Amino acid sequence: METNLEQTPGYGLDKYSESAKDRIREAFGIPDAKVFFLVGGTQTNSTVIASMLHDYQGVVAVETGHIGVHESGAVEFTGHKVLTLPHHDGKMTAEDLRAYLEAFYADGTYEHMVIPGMVYISFPTEFGTIYSKTELAALHRVCKEYSLPLFVDGARLGYGLMSEANDIDPKELPELCDVFYVGGTKVGALFGEAVVFTGGNAPAHFFTTIKQHGALMAKGRLLGLQFDTLFTDGLYFRIAAHADRIAALLKGIFLEKGYKIYIDSPTNQQFFVMSRQKAKELHGKVRFEDWCPVDEDNIAVRFVTSWATTEENVLALKEII
Amino acid sequence: METNLEQTPGYGLDKYSESAKDRIREAFGIPDAKVFFLVGGTQTNSTVIASMLHDYQGVVAVETGHIGVHESGAVEFTGHKVLTLPHHDGKMTAEDLRAYLEAFYADGTYEHMVIPGMVYISFPTEFGTIYSKTELAALHRVCKEYSLPLFVDGARLGYGLMSEANDIDPKELPELCDVFYVGGTKVGALFGEAVVFTGGNAPAHFFTTIKQHGALMAKGRLLGLQFDTLFTDGLYFRIAAHADRIAALLKGIFLEKGYKIYIDSPTNQQFFVMSRQKAKELHGKVRFEDWCPVDEDNIAVRFVTSWATTEENVLALKEII
Amino acid sequence: METNLEQTPGYGLDKYSESAKDRIREAFGIPDAKVFFLVGGTQTNSTVIASMLHDYQGVVAVETGHIGVHESGAVEFTGHKVLTLPHHDGKMTAEDLRAYLEAFYADGTYEHMVIPGMVYISFPTEFGTIYSKTELAALHRVCKEYSLPLFVDGARLGYGLMSEANDIDPKELPELCDVFYVGGTKVGALFGEAVVFTGGNAPAHFFTTIKQHGALMAKGRLLGLQFDTLFTDGLYFRIAAHADRIAALLKGIFLEKGYKIYIDSPTNQQFFVMSRQKAKELHGKVRFEDWCPVDEDNIAVRFVTSWATTEENVLALKEII
Amino acid sequence: METNLEQTPGYGLDKYSESAKDRIREAFGIPDAKVFFLVGGTQTNSTVIASMLHDYQGVVAVETGHIGVHESGAVEFTGHKVLTLPHHDGKMTAEDLRAYLEAFYADGTYEHMVIPGMVYISFPTEFGTIYSKTELAALHRVCKEYSLPLFVDGARLGYGLMSEANDIDPKELPELCDVFYVGGTKVGALFGEAVVFTGGNAPAHFFTTIKQHGALMAKGRLLGLQFDTLFTDGLYFRIAAHADRIAALLKGIFLEKGYKIYIDSPTNQQFFVMSRQKAKELHGKVRFEDWCPVDEDNIAVRFVTSWATTEENVLALKEII
Repeated sequence: METNLEQTPGYGLDKYSESAKDRIREAFGIPDAKVFFLVGGTQTNSTVIASMLHDYQGVVAVETGHIGVHESGAVEFTGHKVLTLPHHDGKMTAEDLRAYLEAFYADGTYEHMVIPGMVYISFPTEFGTIYSKTELAALHRVCKEYSLPLFVDGARLGYGLMSEANDIDPKELPELCDVFYVGGTKVGALFGEAVVFTGGNAPAHFFTTIKQHGALMAKGRLLGLQFDTLFTDGLYFRIAAHADRIAALLKGIFLEKGYKIYIDSPTNQQFFVMSRQKAKELHGKVRFEDWCPVDEDNIAVRFVTSWATTEENVLALKEII
Repeated sequence: METNLEQTPGYGLDKYSESAKDRIREAFGIPDAKVFFLVGGTQTNSTVIASMLHDYQGVVAVETGHIGVHESGAVEFTGHKVLTLPHHDGKMTAEDLRAYLEAFYADGTYEHMVIPGMVYISFPTEFGTIYSKTELAALHRVCKEYSLPLFVDGARLGYGLMSEANDIDPKELPELCDVFYVGGTKVGALFGEAVVFTGGNAPAHFFTTIKQHGALMAKGRLLGLQFDTLFTDGLYFRIAAHADRIAALLKGIFLEKGYKIYIDSPTNQQFFVMSRQKAKELHGKVRFEDWCPVDEDNIAVRFVTSWATTEENVLALKEII
Repeated sequence: METNLEQTPGYGLDKYSESAKDRIREAFGIPDAKVFFLVGGTQTNSTVIASMLHDYQGVVAVETGHIGVHESGAVEFTGHKVLTLPHHDGKMTAEDLRAYLEAFYADGTYEHMVIPGMVYISFPTEFGTIYSKTELAALHRVCKEYSLPLFVDGARLGYGLMSEANDIDPKELPELCDVFYVGGTKVGALFGEAVVFTGGNAPAHFFTTIKQHGALMAKGRLLGLQFDTLFTDGLYFRIAAHADRIAALLKGIFLEKGYKIYIDSPTNQQFFVMSRQKAKELHGKVRFEDWCPVDEDNIAVRFVTSWATTEENVLALKEII
Repeated sequence: METNLEQTPGYGLDKYSESAKDRIREAFGIPDAKVFFLVGGTQTNSTVIASMLHDYQGVVAVETGHIGVHESGAVEFTGHKVLTLPHHDGKMTAEDLRAYLEAFYADGTYEHMVIPGMVYISFPTEFGTIYSKTELAALHRVCKEYSLPLFVDGARLGYGLMSEANDIDPKELPELCDVFYVGGTKVGALFGEAVVFTGGNAPAHFFTTIKQHGALMAKGRLLGLQFDTLFTDGLYFRIAAHADRIAALLKGIFLEKGYKIYIDSPTNQQFFVMSRQKAKELHGKVRFEDWCPVDEDNIAVRFVTSWATTEENVLALKEII
């Protein structure tokens, strides 16, 4: 609000955006990276993917990848197929990727099929899980062998990097992929995702591509301001670390109460098995989601913590779960 | 900022959005209209247009229409051609539209051409001009004869409706078109456009279409809040009326100083002929745009007023132009 | 060749095309059907599918469906996702389809996903298998409940309808689906596929859609002539019946020789398990394809018969397999 | 017909196609060129254009270009805008192109517009006119300065190259553009267009792109056979030369009879001014097209000659026009 009377150039060329870009470059240790701000996740995924693929190419993702399920076909809408691999707690393995690529190019009819053109993963995944440095490096190695850019959907990036279980330093991430984005919407901002092309590999005319996708914010300073703030004094990472810590607390409480973990997540999303009856009772008292059926009596439920979730909130759960 | 700790449903289903929709329905006198919030203009244009056209159809617009020039081909990116007619100070005439449609269907080869599927106009136009009630009614009549929905790009709608020269009441607009949007970004909001389908004609699954276009804002309450505020006690219209009044003042000053009007606009955009030399001097002192060359010595310039432009700002111009 | 000096109207409006359409309508017992000729299968699939879907919709198919695998993403290129179900010897079951649709609409987030808009099956399937009348009727019933048009890819239609195992009369087919095509390219013609909209449900301006997809043949009489010939005195069905009969003979010979069937097909494609060694030897002597690996020592192979395959050809195999 | 029992590899890899490609390379003096066969003109245009453009780019063409008018928006369907320049008897001038490009890049907002990515012309044009070597070289020079590939739609190429007025040798054409196609459909073949990438500039995976566009002919030998025949002993050029000669005869007859030429074409399309009354009388006696209105009493008409038009046919006209 304090900036609304300032006259700034539009479309992300303002001083707040420039400063935010610098801070992001610094946080990830890549002074030459190109940074762009977009508004939301689906938009960011389809814009980045379309900008990096040729028409005849598709994007490889695990079957639970957000782009393949919950984005209303935004990738296909731009003309590209999502080529799916099996997931392992939401993750893609280097072995699966290599096996797929070897089989693909060994098939005499591959020119009749969609050519894999890039790889998409999310970090953390849709199940809150994260890749170890070894896993990500192995995956990236396969990508490089096949000249496939590796794109990391970081809608929840902070929660992954700040997890106790994580062994990847923010400054190491750029060497483990080719493009990633720093999610704002889900990590402290009102909206906004910062796309980072790690090494001089930003597609030509990416600004025009953003505009063409309807993803250009006229008052771009709103994005710049938020990221500038988030990347001042490590606020972005502190927010995420807080949520992860609270999530661990929450997990402890559920375990203590005898709940079974559905998927073991070290980040701010936690998945437990709960009786349908219990879940019904609990709705209205606390906000969580029915995730999927487990068996006749039980479902998996998802609890998500954020910067705004307090220790008290979570301790209060103890009484009612 | 005051709402950031409230827990609200996402994606535009929150109470602020619901209230904002009601207020918009009331302001335009259409209790049954469907209202949707999107983030920006290009996004809104390409989403609405793609949702209302069949693949084999194109959208008819004047050659200066925003969708045909400054939106990086966002409409074509969704697979549709922009079919252009000549403009008259930025406007489409009913006569031109009828002549085009008659010639089109008289041509024995029309099935080899893009079939016109809807009509797009902007109000005010890219030149700040507005349609009279008679002009708009005539255009709409031709559209109805040919079953073409008429879409009004209202990125600057308020400035048009509040112009002294305007004879269309907000409550009359819905009968003069089929879908329009109420521009927030350019009229007082940080961002946001409210799409209004005037009569039970919202495309099925428009929510999914918005998502597919990457145009769905996760924290939709941010849109709802702004429009709720703008449509409380007529703020939206007061903001626009202010800018129009200041623009009229500005026009008076330029005329007094002997400048020639380039296009006679009754809204918040004003176009004058200025010597290249003078324009060069003036840049740096006041914010305006070089619009287009006029002759060897002169160019057209554009001045835009807003809610933040004061009488003092404009009077100060007197001394320097 | 005999018609090359005749002057005929272009684009499928000639007398041969008209006659061919009538004969096809008669063969399938649907006097009011709309028939269109296209050149090839991939083209036909993507044109028909795009013409029947809204932008936000996808097409449901089994994971082995031709549109999802061997068409280079032609469907996605038009903006639509292929939504996959498991296959049963290449077929989709009514139960799987119903379960998918029930789960889809029960999911509170379904508006964030691609909405199913039509169902695609192939008859015979990519494995040569066919649907029984009961199976197809059950599938069609589910489609109708959910208002999903059922599209039958009939690239090899004749071989299915003429199979000894088939219990669907050509005149019954139109009631068991909404649109199908009669494959020419794979059943006796040089090229050409005849799309049949069974009941007044041809999309508006389908001619323009064909043209837009680059699928309109200028000298359309070439398509008309071939289908006119194929549907005179049942030639189309006789060609197919011959190939099916020869295929049964071939299957007998393989069984006699102790080969295991890989997928049991009652049509002109036959799949056997063969040692890698034997397959290597056989290539060069007879034309067949390595289909997929079975285990370390064995692969599945595919033999395809046609109008040109003779009893002698097949008997000669006895000596070398 | 003679080849129908031969077993040949599909999809254009057969010996006829290979031979045809060699002959085309030889005819145009470019031993290293890549040649591909497609079925029809609209398909060829949209496939080639989409394969050479990035998503954010459009194709520059004159307003009368076939791709902008009579192809049902096939280019836009692939997501690309046709950027139009004025035509001069159907041709684009180097001056117009340069002026457009200079103005485009001088415009501070050009990143909000569709970026020009290639240039499309037809030779001969839609009006039968042809570029001189000087004109084409000048145009190509501007293209090269701006790194825009120049694509020549040669649907009627033979008629242009064999025109008495033409000064471009077939062996010079490849140096005057970057990709062209040799039209078969309109010059002697039943169907087929041969795309020629003149200098190692064929897009990667063009085969897959053809398939994705539904433009791959399964029995590709049908294309190979026709072009092999057409490029044996110069048949293609002889057919075209014949039609051009007959067209010149026809023009003489019209001039002798006092008709005014509408557009002066040196190829097989001839345009005359004719009274509406006379045109009405003549239809039914001879095949020609009403082209466009000229004034209240007169229209322009188009006569097209081909390999099948004889001197007698044309002389017979003398009596009835």
